[in-house]
Amino acid sequence: MVSQEFLSKLTVKNDKKIVLLIMDGLGGVQDEVSGKTELETADCPNLDALAKEGICGLSDPISPGITPGSGPAHLSLFGYDPLRYEIGRGLLDSLGIDFEFTQQDLASRGNFATLNKEGIITDRRAGRIATEKNYQICEELFSDLKIDNVKIFVKPVKEHRLSVIFRGEGLSDKISDVDPQKEGLKPLSAKALNDSAQRAADIVNKFLKMANEKLTKFFPANTILLRGFSRMVDLPSFKEIYKLNAAAIAGYPMYRGLAGLLGMDVLPVTKTIEEQFKLLEKEFENYDFFFIHIKQTDSSGEDGDMPRKVKIIEEVDRSISLLRKLSPDVVVITGDHSTPARLKSHSWHPVPLLIYSPHCRFDTVENFTETECIKGGLGRISAGEIMALALANAGKLIKYGA
Amino acid sequence: MVSQEFLSKLTVKNDKKIVLLIMDGLGGVQDEVSGKTELETADCPNLDALAKEGICGLSDPISPGITPGSGPAHLSLFGYDPLRYEIGRGLLDSLGIDFEFTQQDLASRGNFATLNKEGIITDRRAGRIATEKNYQICEELFSDLKIDNVKIFVKPVKEHRLSVIFRGEGLSDKISDVDPQKEGLKPLSAKALNDSAQRAADIVNKFLKMANEKLTKFFPANTILLRGFSRMVDLPSFKEIYKLNAAAIAGYPMYRGLAGLLGMDVLPVTKTIEEQFKLLEKEFENYDFFFIHIKQTDSSGEDGDMPRKVKIIEEVDRSISLLRKLSPDVVVITGDHSTPARLKSHSWHPVPLLIYSPHCRFDTVENFTETECIKGGLGRISAGEIMALALANAGKLIKYGA
Repeated sequence: MVSQEFLSKLTVKNDKKIVLLIMDGLGGVQDEVSGKTELETADCPNLDALAKEGICGLSDPISPGITPGSGPAHLSLFGYDPLRYEIGRGLLDSLGIDFEFTQQDLASRGNFATLNKEGIITDRRAGRIATEKNYQICEELFSDLKIDNVKIFVKPVKEHRLSVIFRGEGLSDKISDVDPQKEGLKPLSAKALNDSAQRAADIVNKFLKMANEKLTKFFPANTILLRGFSRMVDLPSFKEIYKLNAAAIAGYPMYRGLAGLLGMDVLPVTKTIEEQFKLLEKEFENYDFFFIHIKQTDSSGEDGDMPRKVKIIEEVDRSISLLRKLSPDVVVITGDHSTPARLKSHSWHPVPLLIYSPHCRFDTVENFTETECIKGGLGRISAGEIMALALANAGKLIKYGA
Repeated sequence: MVSQEFLSKLTVKNDKKIVLLIMDGLGGVQDEVSGKTELETADCPNLDALAKEGICGLSDPISPGITPGSGPAHLSLFGYDPLRYEIGRGLLDSLGIDFEFTQQDLASRGNFATLNKEGIITDRRAGRIATEKNYQICEELFSDLKIDNVKIFVKPVKEHRLSVIFRGEGLSDKISDVDPQKEGLKPLSAKALNDSAQRAADIVNKFLKMANEKLTKFFPANTILLRGFSRMVDLPSFKEIYKLNAAAIAGYPMYRGLAGLLGMDVLPVTKTIEEQFKLLEKEFENYDFFFIHIKQTDSSGEDGDMPRKVKIIEEVDRSISLLRKLSPDVVVITGDHSTPARLKSHSWHPVPLLIYSPHCRFDTVENFTETECIKGGLGRISAGEIMALALANAGKLIKYGA
């Protein structure tokens, strides 16, 4: 696989449009009773037509045998080496809160928790306070915070969970967790793990002291435990690397956050899958690259709910007719990884991949299924190679060398 | 392909069992008369059944076009980059003598040879003396040798060939060969190729002087020529990297030695292929990984004896029923490289590969042959990726990232 630096030297801008449709956790394995995978069970006339007119294959998100989380799997799909750009847990979780990160930010994830009079943690989740309570506390106590020139954003997530982002110069993420991850212990102090991290540790500790003072009246949510401090990763943008003006149509915060990190315009959240495609139609003139993310294929797979996963695939299939009316120049349809309903989890199985453009070398595949994709003209490739193929099909890559 | 260091961070121990069955030199090419390969000619109901229930593909030992020796080909199968872990020729040959190496050892391979009165080599093979004579000389003259705190082991191999292992502190392998590899010349002195190798060169030269004195009465075997000085390679063990408690069922010394280097328990030598599988049955409860090595597929291929290679494949096939009775969780069947009988040598052709586990995504392959494997669900992968797939199928790899 060529590096992104190499690829970026070959990219050119033109008016061709690429649509990358990701059905999260798309790949499956055969059901024990029916002997068919989710894709083999689903009735997908539109996907099959695209498979017939386009070219198919299988892709490995990271490498054969490796089961990825959705974070690294999406980085790979977008052409970013996920082993080079490791996104810390604190940041990844914080990406879920629809927050505009900057390169100065130090993110962490946290809990509201309960301390007794001796300062010992008696409940790491503060009785799982209601999400509304969480919102109320964050707004009432933690708006417009600043300590030593560091802006602090305290953002509710769900129930007792929150994200805290520290924005300022020189905040290293090489500091230890405050959360001891056990009840019956006192919260720890953030400690600098190297010399340059002292400032960050001091700010975090000052913030927590202030929080404890403010929170006394909100028992059982009378303290904040923080962990997973992570800096922004310096990801080159889609515009820089690919010269693409990209938009994301994704409902789930993590994917919205990741798309934002890559410099995509993150379009408003819609309620249904069909509305995602209507949004595509509405915005179609405004961008030359669209990332559409369907989450439900993964969540139904994780639930082991094969019929639901099949229905969602069929729902996406119906919306494909909307997509085709727009006549995008290149359509890529795949998943970020497999989530076979039979395994109820992400898995290592390679992911069905379909590329449609007028410049494909057509193969003999007539159905968009795992077993057919094996025989497809793309063979088995690395997910990291998909962007180059999409760009090539869109005429956005010049020749290398003479 | 991910690095072994990366992979090792994802490995977990569980009670699932993996069997890796290697038929050395398994892959073939079509016979000129029959138009069939060895696997296509052989009657293999058991292998075919596994192929049908599992998933197939082709693997490249090193990279397309590269014909490997069995040493690097096995390293690759075991997930060790053979270009990173170069095992010197002296060591590789010495691995064949069932000798327990330590990290202090400097190995070399040698010949008994004949010198005339002027000290000129007249026969580099000492008239190919009988193996028994070789054993007799080594035992009579070279037991319990020590020079300057360095223990010296002189081990007969076959006919005129022997291995000499020097065991002591600080013995570099950066010394030149003693064997000029030509008759009509005098043997060379071992020369230090850098400053830190002087001690090793001195010891080798002292040993050779002593050997010449001792050997006068054994004309024509009146000197020893040494070459290929090599140190032990510091290979991380299967336990370290994969958290596997592994056993090797292999009859040939080189494979036994290599398995030992990787920290596998090397089980006793058996007489027949069937006995190798009976040994598997006997030891099945004691390990979670078994490497079974069948040598005869390679030697019959090297001899250009297609009927014999076919018979051996059929003999292995019969033993597969023993294997299946044990119900291992994951079975991997492949070769280390191809040795087509038609070519009478190792070759670069990719190797048929079969993985069987309950978590496979089944493909349409019904026969374990080269031509069917091309259409298999594994596609064409690198042999170095096989261990990750085996571990994944056994549930021994956790998810990477969130």
